Amino acid sequence: MAIKPFRPKTGTARWREVEVREYKVEDSAPFRDVTRQVLFEDHALASQLRYFEVAAGGHTTLERHEHAHAVVVHRGEGQCLVGDQLYALAEGDLVYVPALMWHQFRAAADRPLGFLCMVNAERDRPQLPTAADLAQLRRDPKIAAFIAT
Amino acid sequence: MAIKPFRPKTGTARWREVEVREYKVEDSAPFRDVTRQVLFEDHALASQLRYFEVAAGGHTTLERHEHAHAVVVHRGEGQCLVGDQLYALAEGDLVYVPALMWHQFRAAADRPLGFLCMVNAERDRPQLPTAADLAQLRRDPKIAAFIAT
Repeated sequence: MAIKPFRPKTGTARWREVEVREYKVEDSAPFRDVTRQVLFEDHALASQLRYFEVAAGGHTTLERHEHAHAVVVHRGEGQCLVGDQLYALAEGDLVYVPALMWHQFRAAADRPLGFLCMVNAERDRPQLPTAADLAQLRRDPKIAAFIAT
Repeated sequence: MAIKPFRPKTGTARWREVEVREYKVEDSAPFRDVTRQVLFEDHALASQLRYFEVAAGGHTTLERHEHAHAVVVHRGEGQCLVGDQLYALAEGDLVYVPALMWHQFRAAADRPLGFLCMVNAERDRPQLPTAADLAQLRRDPKIAAFIAT
């Protein structure tokens, strides 16, 4: 479907002709309170630009994949895990998730976390952590606390 | 050069380790008061994400090309031309420039216009309008006024 040249913002994290979708199919992977909006997707574009919003207290799936993510925080606050590091996130911050790095985004307890995410149109499917992967990640107490929340 | 996983916003439209560059080489094409910051560029990414800021009263080059642009207005106000239509722009609005559409972005007289722009990493060079192209565009008085400003 062709993208219109102009689609105004119509409210907080809402745009004309952009559908608010489920983040993923329910029960396909662990996550909580995340919506997905595809802002730009077209055969002429090598990448997609999506907007994800994690509600207060929610989180995306802990996963990894060959493809990379380029993220710009749009609003709210939260934290993310990339590899073996945690980062506090605020509006405007840039996050890059390289190939095969474990990553997860969490909103603050009392604030949503909304972010733009650029991703290659052609990409591999995410991998979920095995029990061994989780044990490895949990060796760092801060990461253990983060992924357990 | 590898992108760090986390680069915080350090001020209004400024990010750690993101260089503020010239929009284009001076005199290579007509433009006024535009800066360019490449937020994400990596061999793993099929596209780049750049931030352009047009100072109050400034404008980008009137041009077209085979590749498409996916734009999210980040701050400020202005107008853009896409094909034969003009659009007023405010923070958060989405603009899509399809292949070979003439386009130009202008900041308001008293406000800057800053926008994110996703573009394929591999792309053709912009084309400038010929005298015949300009004559065609100027047949619409609103477009004539816009591109003449």
